[in-house]
Amino acid sequence: MAEGLIANRLALIGIGLIGSSIARAARERGLVREIVVQTRSPATLERAKELGLGDHYTLDMAEAAKDADVVIASVPVGASEEVAKAIAPALKAGAIVSDVGSVKMSVVRQMAPHLPSSVHFVPAHPIAGTEHSGPDAGLADLYVNRWCILTPLPDTDPAAVEKLSALWRGMGANVETMTPEHHDLVLAITSHVPHLIAYNIVGTAQHLGEVTKSEVIQYSAGGFRDFTRIAASDPTMWRDIFLHNKDAVLEMLGRFSEDLTALQRMIRYGDGNGLFDLFTRTRAIRRSIIDKGQDAPEADFGRHKIAAKAET
Amino acid sequence: MAEGLIANRLALIGIGLIGSSIARAARERGLVREIVVQTRSPATLERAKELGLGDHYTLDMAEAAKDADVVIASVPVGASEEVAKAIAPALKAGAIVSDVGSVKMSVVRQMAPHLPSSVHFVPAHPIAGTEHSGPDAGLADLYVNRWCILTPLPDTDPAAVEKLSALWRGMGANVETMTPEHHDLVLAITSHVPHLIAYNIVGTAQHLGEVTKSEVIQYSAGGFRDFTRIAASDPTMWRDIFLHNKDAVLEMLGRFSEDLTALQRMIRYGDGNGLFDLFTRTRAIRRSIIDKGQDAPEADFGRHKIAAKAET
Ligand SMILES: NC(=O)c1ccc[n+]([C@@H]2O[C@H](COP(=O)([O-])OP(=O)(O)OC[C@H]3O[C@@H](n4cnc5c(N)ncnc54)[C@H](OP(=O)(O)O)[C@@H]3O)[C@@H](O)[C@H]2O)c1
Ligand SMILES: NC(=O)c1ccc[n+]([C@@H]2O[C@H](COP(=O)([O-])OP(=O)(O)OC[C@H]3O[C@@H](n4cnc5c(N)ncnc54)[C@H](OP(=O)(O)O)[C@@H]3O)[C@@H](O)[C@H]2O)c1
Repeated sequence: MAEGLIANRLALIGIGLIGSSIARAARERGLVREIVVQTRSPATLERAKELGLGDHYTLDMAEAAKDADVVIASVPVGASEEVAKAIAPALKAGAIVSDVGSVKMSVVRQMAPHLPSSVHFVPAHPIAGTEHSGPDAGLADLYVNRWCILTPLPDTDPAAVEKLSALWRGMGANVETMTPEHHDLVLAITSHVPHLIAYNIVGTAQHLGEVTKSEVIQYSAGGFRDFTRIAASDPTMWRDIFLHNKDAVLEMLGRFSEDLTALQRMIRYGDGNGLFDLFTRTRAIRRSIIDKGQDAPEADFGRHKIAAKAET
Repeated sequence: MAEGLIANRLALIGIGLIGSSIARAARERGLVREIVVQTRSPATLERAKELGLGDHYTLDMAEAAKDADVVIASVPVGASEEVAKAIAPALKAGAIVSDVGSVKMSVVRQMAPHLPSSVHFVPAHPIAGTEHSGPDAGLADLYVNRWCILTPLPDTDPAAVEKLSALWRGMGANVETMTPEHHDLVLAITSHVPHLIAYNIVGTAQHLGEVTKSEVIQYSAGGFRDFTRIAASDPTMWRDIFLHNKDAVLEMLGRFSEDLTALQRMIRYGDGNGLFDLFTRTRAIRRSIIDKGQDAPEADFGRHKIAAKAET
């Protein structure tokens, strides 16, 4: 499958949901000749071996980066600087270094200063994932028809950007390029604040006196259960996202709260028309998301069918 | 299927998602001998006929209620009083009158004063639904393994409560009884506030200057798209819910906002441990919801599989 070949040696630093999905996709689609898998703990490394995710396995980041044409870090955003420091001395000239972190300005600040000028640094973020973590959670088709955002710095070699782009397209993704600043604002509203308010409402529901936790669980099909899926996402990953995209998150959260206060007033003063107008406007956006292939068109995400099947 | 028979004549006032799901389930499971379908508009009535949802069809509420053993109103909460007034003179002695409204104190206040003492009033609320509306959206198995809450008044005949309960169990639901007051608090946190914040974040995302609407749509897989499903629910139904469950919604919203402010401070002052602790606590509740059969266990609600299949 040499025609699909994009690089000889791919080093994956971190092999959780995102790293292992890259391993599976790159292997299945013949995008690289060999894959080196690195992870922090012996237990995860052992599991990666059992799953056959790579050709070489190591706990040592520098060892993994040696001789690699492309190195991709898939670790919590807060570990980015440590990765850059560890791999920097081992990188070969001309190598491409990338990541998958959900925040980009902070990753650039953490990694760029440590990388030698002989390598190409192209930060990236695939907009795809699930609420599960670890090497078992990965999926070969996780990136199919999802977007991957690249945030190269102004002086990055366009050929390196194109090569990384080809790798993501090879995994089924659509690729878009923007500045790290803009990325962080876009993701604050499309991902970070939604996760924050999901975590928050689940937290609120857990410490009510009048309504018990078992009632909340029992009647969750009224809407609440959707939020619990998001609020079941990995705590380390999300702690790092909020700490490292602080400014954009606080900015978007401020607007959310302002709008919520207006909505609260409409309820308090019985402004039915105001409520109706907002609820009508918000409907249209769902249609567009389905039309653009970014969500399943089925009622209730199609899970109703899955549940009904499981019961019969 | 006489052994499953619970009533002779069932009158359905309103034949949208909820009413038509009752029609389908009651028919399929042989719970009633005949179904009378009433709706407000000739167009919806025509569609109900085409779908074969009943045995008799009428635009007149009183006409529908005449000779019925059980009458169930499935209309927006704000239309409850109008229904009670219209059907009251036509009801036969001993009939059971019920509803499916998402708010219960207001429905009791609107309907109880108009109903004759010769009938049994048993308000109900099935905790099941989708973001779609109208008679085409109904599903025969919508209520299977979902909860239906009954909120009978203290002096209601227990036999009537049991009969309505049997009807819901016959449609596959589990039945629970509580006061209307408690119902409205439980639903405020498990359904109404989640819907409100979903509508709100979609509204916030729509009028940002720096981030365009097409960017919001494109990158919605980061979490935002889950909220758009909920925010695509029927505007009339939800306007009525917020206006009619005002006190409980404002109370729960106040707690949500208080908690959100605390979370905002954690982000501002870099309290990583505080964030990590909350995100760890919120994880557990998802597990319980899945264990209790109230959501699909698949990653991403299983929609990933549906989407991947559609693309190949
Ligand atoms: N999950 C999503 O939906 C999603 C989507 C897009 C982007 N991302 C981004 O992708 C990255 C990885 O997320 P994931 O979901 O793949 O996480 P994951 O499944 O939890 O896997 C994390 C990987 O990073 C390693 N790791 C954790 N902490 C580390 C540290 N301090 N130093 C070095 N290695 C460490 C883990 O090693 P051990 O297991 O050996 O400890 C594991 O290999 C994050 O930056 C996240 O923002 C996630
Ligand atoms: N959707 C859910 O997820 C869900 C879940 C549990 C409970 N509920 C409750 O169920 C009830 C019905 O919801 P639904 O989803 O079935 O709504 P729907 O699909 O929009 O159907 C509404 C029905 O009520 C009729 N109607 C609307 N406005 C009316 C008015 N002012 N006077 C008389 N009839 C009127 C409609 O008639 P025409 O079409 O002929 O105009 C239609 O037959 C609501 O009270 C809601 O709170 C909904």
